[in-house]
Parts: sequence; structure tokens; C-alpha cells
Amino acid sequence: MIEIDARHERFVQPLATALEAVASIFETQLASEFPAVESLCNHVGRYRGKMLRPTLTLLSGLAAREGDVTVLESDDLRRLAAVFEMIHMATLVHDDVLDEADDRRGGATVNRLNDNETAVMLGDYLISNAFHLAASIGDADLTERIGRVTNTLCEGELIQLHHRDDLGLDLETYLATIRRKTAVLVGACGSLGARVAGGTDAAGRALGVFGERLGIAFQIRDDVFDLDGDAAVVGKSVGRDLAKGKLTLPMILLLDGADATVFSKAVDAFRGRDAGAVLRLLQDGDAITRAIAFATEQVAVAKDAIAGVPFGGTEALLDDLADAVVARDH
Amino acid sequence: MIEIDARHERFVQPLATALEAVASIFETQLASEFPAVESLCNHVGRYRGKMLRPTLTLLSGLAAREGDVTVLESDDLRRLAAVFEMIHMATLVHDDVLDEADDRRGGATVNRLNDNETAVMLGDYLISNAFHLAASIGDADLTERIGRVTNTLCEGELIQLHHRDDLGLDLETYLATIRRKTAVLVGACGSLGARVAGGTDAAGRALGVFGERLGIAFQIRDDVFDLDGDAAVVGKSVGRDLAKGKLTLPMILLLDGADATVFSKAVDAFRGRDAGAVLRLLQDGDAITRAIAFATEQVAVAKDAIAGVPFGGTEALLDDLADAVVARDH
Repeated sequence: MIEIDARHERFVQPLATALEAVASIFETQLASEFPAVESLCNHVGRYRGKMLRPTLTLLSGLAAREGDVTVLESDDLRRLAAVFEMIHMATLVHDDVLDEADDRRGGATVNRLNDNETAVMLGDYLISNAFHLAASIGDADLTERIGRVTNTLCEGELIQLHHRDDLGLDLETYLATIRRKTAVLVGACGSLGARVAGGTDAAGRALGVFGERLGIAFQIRDDVFDLDGDAAVVGKSVGRDLAKGKLTLPMILLLDGADATVFSKAVDAFRGRDAGAVLRLLQDGDAITRAIAFATEQVAVAKDAIAGVPFGGTEALLDDLADAVVARDH
Repeated sequence: MIEIDARHERFVQPLATALEAVASIFETQLASEFPAVESLCNHVGRYRGKMLRPTLTLLSGLAAREGDVTVLESDDLRRLAAVFEMIHMATLVHDDVLDEADDRRGGATVNRLNDNETAVMLGDYLISNAFHLAASIGDADLTERIGRVTNTLCEGELIQLHHRDDLGLDLETYLATIRRKTAVLVGACGSLGARVAGGTDAAGRALGVFGERLGIAFQIRDDVFDLDGDAAVVGKSVGRDLAKGKLTLPMILLLDGADATVFSKAVDAFRGRDAGAVLRLLQDGDAITRAIAFATEQVAVAKDAIAGVPFGGTEALLDDLADAVVARDH
């Protein structure tokens, strides 16, 4: 997710080693004696992405210990990082179920149907293993906090589904929803990463806010990619939100300030699932730019939240991570 | 699930009170400030069934404490009972997703599709809340054990999907699969119910085996209902296993001893999803009766497992519960 420049060279190797260890904990946790399960878990690898969550977890632990790299050797911290990635992966797998269901509207095949059922169960297997791994850290209160985070995440997903095709969705509800479905988990990477590393409460709180704001910015950036991205660059199919009737920030901003003509065109394009027309209207109304500006603002708030907390030289790393959330090209 | 006869009258009220408390913990845990989530959770009520898992959890706690009814007032024991019911409910909700997907083969509607997506997320919300509730008991080792149980459960579901339409499925694999997907959870009601109640290791082990064997018997009984049951009596649609290409014990027993003619007829009826023909063949081959006998045998093994452990007068209740698993009419 981030490139670490020469100023922070002493962090490079320990972070890379810890991230590799996280990947290995991830695989070991999912290992099964059953070939059928094992091969599915190997497929989960294809969902591997930017590793934002484990990176932030490790970095938050490092920051909370003021740059003491030995904390990156902590098995508990590495496990926690793997837990968050596994939870994230489970949501991706279950999101795909929904997409496959959508695809199938064009014509169902038994084979695809099997895949769909398997994806539900595979996602459940990931969720279950995430909790099992979390519990293995041996801190009941920590596990309970993680459970609260995932409760909130599921609520966010349910609220989002509830507002499908709701063209009256307002900014406040949109933000409350993405906070729940995305940002609270990223916030937990910050706050619980700091906690498991043995940081102060103040450090944990600051990193929690930092993560949450980053999560909001990240989701907005993702939502924009879904509107104007190139599938080949983004690495996943785009236009999924529109196909599912999911209103995101650019459209909300456009509708909010639109005159009657633009409003009616936008509604028609959205209802007609016309991705090209939607994108043109958003661009003409400057809504994509305004959405990115909103995300950039969230990044600034994130940086503010950690300003002044002594993080032993890791501040610049956190700032770089924050910038990368919006500046990324996929 | 069980009727308690006059001999055990002193257990009646405390068990009924505890079961009501379990239902209330269940509802409180799922409560959400969001009306959209709240109304979904109310719908979950329709999945409420025989309460086998919470009943066994409470009963195991009671037995492990040799009939001391005050243990039924334990908030931890009640929470554990609610956790197991919630995990079970999550599997039912996700099973329904798969069925709805099946229905859709005849013609998809957006509305149904929405329901399907919501069911995936609602199931996730139940799983997440089950873990959150489990963690709130405050015993990290207990939570880890529950996580291991659900890992196993998901493996069982994945293995079952893998063997869809596998007419070569043998008895051993079938039993290993239902042990994982059903019996391990019921076994945990016994062993962890005893543990949370403060029972001895010996009591926990015995009740664990008792529960696991009961779970196998219960699943076989359910599988038979799916073949020969009346939907109005069973309270859910029947014939689902055949529709999904799921081979269960009666068919395995039939194919195992069949001559070439019966074998080929059975294979054709199964592949053709002809529920009537399948049932006639099973009945002619005595396979339903043999499957029920197999389940009854498991109940006997369950009872044997707890014989000789001092359970302070609750033995007869456990025996009644065991009998009810096979003798039930739905």
C-alpha cells in the first residue's frame, strides 16, 4: 500500500517481515485437512489486495510504541492484523455472492449456482476463522470489541441494502452507512493495533480516529473508481454500484445541487442503469471532483487526529499511508 | 422439545424460566437502533424451532451440577445457550439463501434478488452477534472453542456442497459430514454447557459425546423428514435435499445393498429429481426404516455415554430428550 522512502529505512525490513508473517498466519489459520476446503481457501488468495488493514494495524502498533520495531515481532499484533484482513476478505467473498446472483439474471446455470452456494459457505468459513483467530489471542475483551465492530459492519451492509434505489438518500445517511460498513473496521485496525501493542489509551484513541477517517476516504475513493475507473487498472469489475442501485457520494452531491433538468436526467440515467450517461452527468456537474475533494478533506482530518501524539518517527509513515488512500490509481 | 413428566417436576419451572431468559438475551443481542435491521431481526423469529440447542445447553449445565437448579440462573449459561441458538439460526438463514437461489432458476425477480442479498447479510449479522455474545461471557478459551466448532461446521457445509450429486458418496463420508455440519455444535452444547456451569471434566466429556450422538440422530431424522415428511406437519418445505442433489442416509443405504436394476432405477430417479419415485424405491428397499434404526442406535449410544455419571436426577430428562430426537413427528 505504501512506499517507504529513505528517511524511514529502519522501518522497511521489520514491516515487510511482519506483513509476510501476517500472510502466513492467514494461510495457516485457513488450512484444512479436506482437499475441497483447502482448494477453496487457496482461491481466496485472488481477493488479496492492498493489505490496507494489516498494514495499518502493524503501523499503529509501531506508532503506539513510538517506533520500537521489536513490537512488529509480536505474535498477537500479527494475529490481529490477520484477523482484520480475514474479516475484510469475508465481506468481499459475500459481496461476490451478490454480484454472481446479479449476473445470473441473464441466465442461470447450475454450475454458477453451485459457485454461489459455495461462496456463501466460504465467506462463513472466513468469518468463523477470523473469530477463532481473534479468540486465540486470549483477550476476551479484545474479542468482544472485534465482535462489536463486525456487528456494526453487518448493520452497515443491511442499511445499504435497505437504501438500494433510494434516490432520496442524503449525505448524512450515506456517511453513516459507509462509516459502519467500512470505516469502523479500519478504525479498529488503528485503535486495537495500538492496544495490542501496549500503547497508551491516548495513542489508541488518536489512531482509531485516524483509521476511521481513512476508512471513509478509502470507501469514497473506491466508490469513485467504480464510476470512472478502468476495470483493467482497478483490477475488479466496475459499474457494480450502479448495477445494484447503490447511490454513492458523487451522485448524492450531484442530485443535491441540481436544477430540475439535471436532476431528472440523472434520475433517468440511474434508473436506466446507463453507466455512460451517469458518468457524463457527474463529470459535467463536477461531482467526481467534489467527491474526491471530500475524501481528501477526510484524509486531512485523519492527519490532524494524530498530530501532536508522540509516535517516534512513524508520523511520516502514517501521513504517507493517509495520502496513498486517495492518491492511489487503483 | 421435551415434555417433562411429574417425576421431575422440580426442574420444570426453572428450565422454563431459563429458556425464556435465553429468548430475551437473544432478542436483546440482536436489537438495533436502525429500523431496517430491527425489522429483519424480528423476522428471524420465524426460524425459531425446537430449541434443541439451548435446551441441551441448559440441561447439560443442570446435569453437570447434579440437578442444582440455581445453576439455571447463571447469566453465562443462558448466554451460551443463546449463542448456540444464534449460530444455528445463522446456518438456517444462509441455507435459505441457497434455496431462494434455486427457486430463482425458474425466473428471477429483482425483488427476490434483494431478499437473497439481505439474507446473506442477515446471516452474517447473526454470526457476528453470536461471537460478540460469546466473547461477552469473558472467557477467551471458551470463545476459542466456539470458534473451532463453527470452523468445523463451515467445513462440513463445504464438504457437503463438494459432494453434491455424488452418487458414490459412502456411509463413512456422509457420517463425517453430518458430524461436522450438525453434531459438533450439538456436542458443544453438552460439553460447554457443562463447563460453563462449573461441572467436572468427566461430566463435560460425557455430555459432549451425548450431544454429538444426538446431533447425528437429529440430522438423520431431519433428512428422513425431508424425504417422506408432509410440509404442513414438518413446518418447512420438504424435498429440498433432492432438489439440491444432496444424498442422505436412506439413499446411501439403498444404493449400498441394491442389485443392478434397483441401483439404476434409483440413480435415474435421483438424477431426474423425481421425489415420488425416490420415495417409493426407498420404501420398497426398506431404506427409510433402516435409516431410522440407525438414528435410534445413535440415541442408544448417546444414552450409554452418560450412563454411570452422577447427574443428580437429571438422567431421566436427558434420556427423554434423547428419545424425543428420533420419536418427534416434525
